[in-house]
Amino acid sequence: MLTAAHTQYLNNLVGAENFYTDPAHLQAYAYDATRERHLPDGVIFPRHEEDVRQILAYCNEHQIIIVPRGAGSGFTGGALSAHGGLVLSLEKHFDRILEIDEKNLIARVQPGVINKHFQNEVEKRGLFYPPDPASQDQSTLGGNVSENAGGMRAAKYGITKDYVMALRAVLPNGDVIRAGKKTIKDVAGFNVAGILIASEGCLAVITEITLKLLAKPKLKQSAMGVFSSIQDAMEAVYKSMASGVTPVAMEFLDNLSIRAVEERFNKGLPTEAGAILITQVDGSVPEQISWQLEQIEKHFRENGCVDFRVAQNAQQEEDLWFARRNASQSISVYGKKKLNEDVTVPRASLPALLQEVERISQAYNLPIPCFGHTGDGNVHVNIMLEDPATQLEKGQQAMEEIFKSAIALEGTLSGEHGIGLSKARFMPLAFTPEEMALFRRIKSAFDPNNILNPFKMGL
Amino acid sequence: MLTAAHTQYLNNLVGAENFYTDPAHLQAYAYDATRERHLPDGVIFPRHEEDVRQILAYCNEHQIIIVPRGAGSGFTGGALSAHGGLVLSLEKHFDRILEIDEKNLIARVQPGVINKHFQNEVEKRGLFYPPDPASQDQSTLGGNVSENAGGMRAAKYGITKDYVMALRAVLPNGDVIRAGKKTIKDVAGFNVAGILIASEGCLAVITEITLKLLAKPKLKQSAMGVFSSIQDAMEAVYKSMASGVTPVAMEFLDNLSIRAVEERFNKGLPTEAGAILITQVDGSVPEQISWQLEQIEKHFRENGCVDFRVAQNAQQEEDLWFARRNASQSISVYGKKKLNEDVTVPRASLPALLQEVERISQAYNLPIPCFGHTGDGNVHVNIMLEDPATQLEKGQQAMEEIFKSAIALEGTLSGEHGIGLSKARFMPLAFTPEEMALFRRIKSAFDPNNILNPFKMGL
Repeated sequence: MLTAAHTQYLNNLVGAENFYTDPAHLQAYAYDATRERHLPDGVIFPRHEEDVRQILAYCNEHQIIIVPRGAGSGFTGGALSAHGGLVLSLEKHFDRILEIDEKNLIARVQPGVINKHFQNEVEKRGLFYPPDPASQDQSTLGGNVSENAGGMRAAKYGITKDYVMALRAVLPNGDVIRAGKKTIKDVAGFNVAGILIASEGCLAVITEITLKLLAKPKLKQSAMGVFSSIQDAMEAVYKSMASGVTPVAMEFLDNLSIRAVEERFNKGLPTEAGAILITQVDGSVPEQISWQLEQIEKHFRENGCVDFRVAQNAQQEEDLWFARRNASQSISVYGKKKLNEDVTVPRASLPALLQEVERISQAYNLPIPCFGHTGDGNVHVNIMLEDPATQLEKGQQAMEEIFKSAIALEGTLSGEHGIGLSKARFMPLAFTPEEMALFRRIKSAFDPNNILNPFKMGL
Repeated sequence: MLTAAHTQYLNNLVGAENFYTDPAHLQAYAYDATRERHLPDGVIFPRHEEDVRQILAYCNEHQIIIVPRGAGSGFTGGALSAHGGLVLSLEKHFDRILEIDEKNLIARVQPGVINKHFQNEVEKRGLFYPPDPASQDQSTLGGNVSENAGGMRAAKYGITKDYVMALRAVLPNGDVIRAGKKTIKDVAGFNVAGILIASEGCLAVITEITLKLLAKPKLKQSAMGVFSSIQDAMEAVYKSMASGVTPVAMEFLDNLSIRAVEERFNKGLPTEAGAILITQVDGSVPEQISWQLEQIEKHFRENGCVDFRVAQNAQQEEDLWFARRNASQSISVYGKKKLNEDVTVPRASLPALLQEVERISQAYNLPIPCFGHTGDGNVHVNIMLEDPATQLEKGQQAMEEIFKSAIALEGTLSGEHGIGLSKARFMPLAFTPEEMALFRRIKSAFDPNNILNPFKMGL
């Protein structure tokens, strides 16, 4: 796809140190967290926005595919060049925090800044950036915006889109656009920033992000509730939140997940429990913390909670969260390969969703440990395959049934991970032909030659 | 524009009682809060979504302009048919609250529901819908979504877009689309709901809105700070908010506004003050309320606050807010006509913005009382004309200077009111030709024949 002339042009533009076509380097940009591999024809590292502009304009003219890439930590292949072309990596030269404006509680960053690095920098100043995807140590803010990343704190603080105030971006034709403002209120022009968020790199290359910050809450405290059945736990989630408490996080592990963590780490977890809920509240004064924990305990106990433990110090806090943090890696005890998806339903439909997962697990005779962000209805379902060679098709059928159940419960195919390549074939389960046609027209409005991350999202 | 055949078709479709072409009825749909008048060729009241679908498909085929309309309370002509065609009114048959889902803290409504009516209904259930535009007694939720309405509580609770979870809408070609989900997290497909919000009826006709609700805060308390200078007050706003307190509202009146209210209502307001700030905090426990008020008082006093009064009961609460609620009508003491706009800047730029307004007021020798939502940087500037016939052009020039100042301070042409007709000509001050071109391509992706609210927003 890349001719000698293209290679020469791009090489001259950014310099040989910022443009690779040798197999070793291409291999390094062929992967993401899906474990699929797709070799690009080249990897280019723009040094600044003007490079992005020139690269896009050139590739648009010559119909060369561009796949924007942050850290490559995505779960759905959004940063994979499944159809060749150029990977445009923002990790090398777009990694600066440009401004932390403490007067306005706003930051301006480049898209290659690592989420956790940014969190640390703002917290040093007593400020707070809530979105905390599990990938926060690796994933970039540009990737977070492109996938609209969530995390554990979404129950109270929302997700990436709730913090994006403005973007700068380059369109495939080389036009530089600004979208949004540094102001809470801005109703001039179409909400272009809104449509760029979660667009999975299909519409434009983001070159600068303006994010809203909060003051860091002074106090926080965590608690764990143990439930004999998962149904009880799921009822407790939505009933406690409907009562007027909004915890920072309301996470759960099902019995399989609890037992997996216990098997690996031996932490004295309640292995007979149907589920545990781990929650955290925050605030400015101690009375606010205790009021929230009292309310949660009351609603937990009314819904079958047999044990409620409040962390009394940092160590206990750490211990309570240990099980949740180690669930994802621990469930490998159930199989060599996992098919993991992140379906999401309205909270009150969690009991029904988990019942469906149980039914599907039995019907397909596959263990499906579940854990995740029940506070926002987001469940990580993990179909475990002991022998992937013979079980893969069965596992995929089971996953399709789970998707259908989630959608029937007014939920979504993906709460956090996006669609990318992995879920592209499921889009018709969730969207009508008319809705898919609208997506394609929006794509064309930004990218008429379809050079930016084509074929992703089922487009 | 409407031929006899068109009239007959539309009449047959919805019935004579839902389709008017007689002058008296047309007059009633020719106005909004701009006081401009533009007679449409017809007014149609679809009875249900299927009517909307058929009307749009027919008008699309016959290139008939459609202007969607809620209550007609907008300040920028968004609901005015400045180029003839049909006004499509959703006030008659789309006024139902379809569901208040207390388990998930979600409501589904039709677009013609009045904001205040909806607020009352959810508050009866102990729930809370924060967006409270000043027009809340008249304006519809569909209009609020289309203009992305704000209000006084935006400082803490954000604006309409922060509460829209999902929309149903009809595209000009008659396609019915769903956008968004009943879930906090949803990253499947492009964020079409995001771009429909604030699109001023230019992209689709919204037929159903799913809104996020909160539990109603149990406690609230208000306070007023009196400042000798407006500069001090503006410094106090951003410094207190940067310190970690997020009040529900942080409103201001400048000296001219204070004096106007006092002249009309004689309430014992501090007429020598440079400005007053009126603020409200809320929470679940009394200690949280007092902590916030203490913090605010501290930062107010550090920035020149000469008097700080906390409301101790409902009557005092009411009294504190009286001045703010009556500012808009009271400033008519300064002139027969007001040019009022709603520029918005990052909070820390408020001192500079108000300084610019003062300079422009002197340069043009026109009184410009200001009040508004300083907590989110949103200032209602009111250029008062004693003799509109001779002063209008001068007033408009002064307003253009204010727009330029706001934009130079990284602000926006409009925080709340939108662009519509009134501000269409100022769009090039805020957007580049490339950005305007992108807006036009987005418009075309939804509305290729340009029948929906054409020429608004400078498109």
